[in-house]
Amino acid sequence: MAASDISGADGHGVFRLPQYIRRIKAGGLNTAPNIRVIRRSRAAAVVDGDNGLGSLVVARAVEEAIGLARDNGVGWVGVRRGNHAGAAAVYAAMPLVHDMIGLYFAVGNANHLPPWGGIDMLLSTNPIAVAVPALEEPPLVLDMATTVAAYGKVKVAAQQGKTMPEGWMIDREGRPLTDPNRADDGFLLPIGGYKGAALALMFGLLAGTLNGAANGADVVDFNKDDTTPTNTGQAICVVDIKAFAEPTQFKRQVDAVIRQLHGSALLPGFEHIRLPGEDRHRRIAEREESGIPIPPELRHALDRMAAELAIAPLFG
Amino acid sequence: MAASDISGADGHGVFRLPQYIRRIKAGGLNTAPNIRVIRRSRAAAVVDGDNGLGSLVVARAVEEAIGLARDNGVGWVGVRRGNHAGAAAVYAAMPLVHDMIGLYFAVGNANHLPPWGGIDMLLSTNPIAVAVPALEEPPLVLDMATTVAAYGKVKVAAQQGKTMPEGWMIDREGRPLTDPNRADDGFLLPIGGYKGAALALMFGLLAGTLNGAANGADVVDFNKDDTTPTNTGQAICVVDIKAFAEPTQFKRQVDAVIRQLHGSALLPGFEHIRLPGEDRHRRIAEREESGIPIPPELRHALDRMAAELAIAPLFG
Repeated sequence: MAASDISGADGHGVFRLPQYIRRIKAGGLNTAPNIRVIRRSRAAAVVDGDNGLGSLVVARAVEEAIGLARDNGVGWVGVRRGNHAGAAAVYAAMPLVHDMIGLYFAVGNANHLPPWGGIDMLLSTNPIAVAVPALEEPPLVLDMATTVAAYGKVKVAAQQGKTMPEGWMIDREGRPLTDPNRADDGFLLPIGGYKGAALALMFGLLAGTLNGAANGADVVDFNKDDTTPTNTGQAICVVDIKAFAEPTQFKRQVDAVIRQLHGSALLPGFEHIRLPGEDRHRRIAEREESGIPIPPELRHALDRMAAELAIAPLFG
Repeated sequence: MAASDISGADGHGVFRLPQYIRRIKAGGLNTAPNIRVIRRSRAAAVVDGDNGLGSLVVARAVEEAIGLARDNGVGWVGVRRGNHAGAAAVYAAMPLVHDMIGLYFAVGNANHLPPWGGIDMLLSTNPIAVAVPALEEPPLVLDMATTVAAYGKVKVAAQQGKTMPEGWMIDREGRPLTDPNRADDGFLLPIGGYKGAALALMFGLLAGTLNGAANGADVVDFNKDDTTPTNTGQAICVVDIKAFAEPTQFKRQVDAVIRQLHGSALLPGFEHIRLPGEDRHRRIAEREESGIPIPPELRHALDRMAAELAIAPLFG
C-alpha cells in the first residue's frame, strides 16, 4: 500500500485499508495464508494465494518470475486465489532494479465493462502495466485501465460534485452519461471502442482464466460482497534484458528514444511531452523526501478505524 | 501472404507483392538471407533476419518460441533485421494448434504517430496481437493497431473518395482532419489518447529496441525508401497452456467466457456481440472452401508485374 501511495497512486494505497479491514472482519480475507507455488515448469509457475492479501500474493509471484527470468531469459508467473493488489505499476516496476522488464496483467475486482455492443457488465477494467528501464532518464512505466476512465475517477467526480466529460461512460441506451451519481445506470467505455474491450478480454484470460482464477461472470464485486473469496487472478511476465542485449547499451537506446520523443514539436495547448511513468518517478522522489500527504478525510477514516480496532491511531 | 489473405487481412496479403518486388529490384531486401539465432538462453532467443522477407523471418522466430515454450512453459523470441511481415494475427495464431497462447508485438514500417501532445511522427502504429484457443468455439484472436484507424484504412478512404470520421486523424493544429487526401498534413490518433501512444511506445521498445531493431527516429518508411534496410523488429511470446492448467479444461473455460459474452443483452443499434477473431475464423472457413477473391485492380497489378518480370501471370 505504501508503494502505491508513494508513487502517487493514492486510490490504491492506504485509502484501501478500511475496505481491506472490513473484508478481514467479515471473514472474506485469509490473514494467515499459505502462499505457494502449485505448478512449476522451467520458466513458468502458478502461485496460489490462499485468499491472502493481494499485495503479498502478487509480490511473491513477481519475486518468483524474477528468479525464473534470471535463469531462463524470461519468466511468467500466474496467480490464482489472490485479491485486490493495488497499483499495477508497483509490480511491473519490481524487475527494473534487476535490469529486467516487467509486464503485468490483472483481472479487476468488479465488472464495469460490457462486451462491445452489449450492456451486461461481464468484463472488468483489467489493467495492463509495462515497465522498461532507462539509463539516465527515468524508467518508462505504463499503468493503464483498458477503459477511457478508471472507475475510481468516476467515484472522485461524484465526491467532488463534478460532471464527467462525454466519452467516459454511456447509459444502457448508448447515450453519453455525464452525471457520476448516475454511474449505476450505465458503464465505462473501453479505449478505442471494440479494441479496448478486446484488450480487457484477452488480458483477462491471461490473468484470470489461465490460472484458474475468476474472469467474466465469476468476478466477485469486492465493493458489494465482503465474504465470498474473490479468487483474483494476475499474471506477471519478466524479461531479462541481458538475454537480448547488453543492458547498458539497451538502456542507452531507451534514453535515446525518450529524448527523441521529448524533442518533438508540440501541439497547440501542450507545454511538454509527458511519457508514461514520468509523473510517477517525480512523485516517488518528492514523497521519499517529504513523505506521503494524507488528506484530512482519509486521516479521520484511519483514526476512526484504529479506534474501532482498539489500536493506536496512525497519527497518535 | 496467403495466410494473411485467407484470413481476410487483404491489405497484408498478395496486395503487398508489388511493393516487395519493387524493394527486391532496388536491392533493399535480401532474397537469400541467412536467418539465424544469434543469442540464446533457456527460454529466450534473438533471431537475426539478415534483411530477409519479414514473413520468413518472423515465422522462424515463432517456431523457435513454440519450441522454447514446450520445454520451459514460456518462450520469448525477438527479431532484428527483419522486414514487414504481414498481418500480426498470422503469427500470434501459429501456437494455437499446439495448445499454446501467442502474443505478438511489432514495430510498424512507417511512423504515423507523434508522442502524445507532439506533432513529430516518431512512433508507428505498432500492432499488438494475442491469440487464445477455445474448445468448441473459434479461438479468440486480437490483432489491433494502437491507433484508432490503421493507416491502410486512410489509404482505402482516399482511393474510394470517402471522408474519414472525426477521431481518426488530426492536423498539426490539433483540428480534426477528415479529408484522406490531406493525410500528409496530420497524423493518426492513438486509442484512448495518451494510453494508445504509450502502448505504441512500450510495445515498440519490446519489439524493436530490445532486439537491436529500429524504433523511433530510426524507423525507415518503407513506402518512400526501397533501399535502406528497414531493420524491422518483432517479438513473439508463446505461453504453453499445460504449464498453467489442463488444456482441455482451460479451453472449456474460454468457451464459457465466450458464451457469457455472446449472451449479453445488446445496446441499441447492435445485432450481435462480435468477439476478436470471429470474423477472421469465419473468413478462413469461407476462403478455404471457395478460394481467395482477388479484385480486378489487384489482378491487373499482379499480371502487369508478371509481364515486367517475364514470368507467367498468376491467372494465365
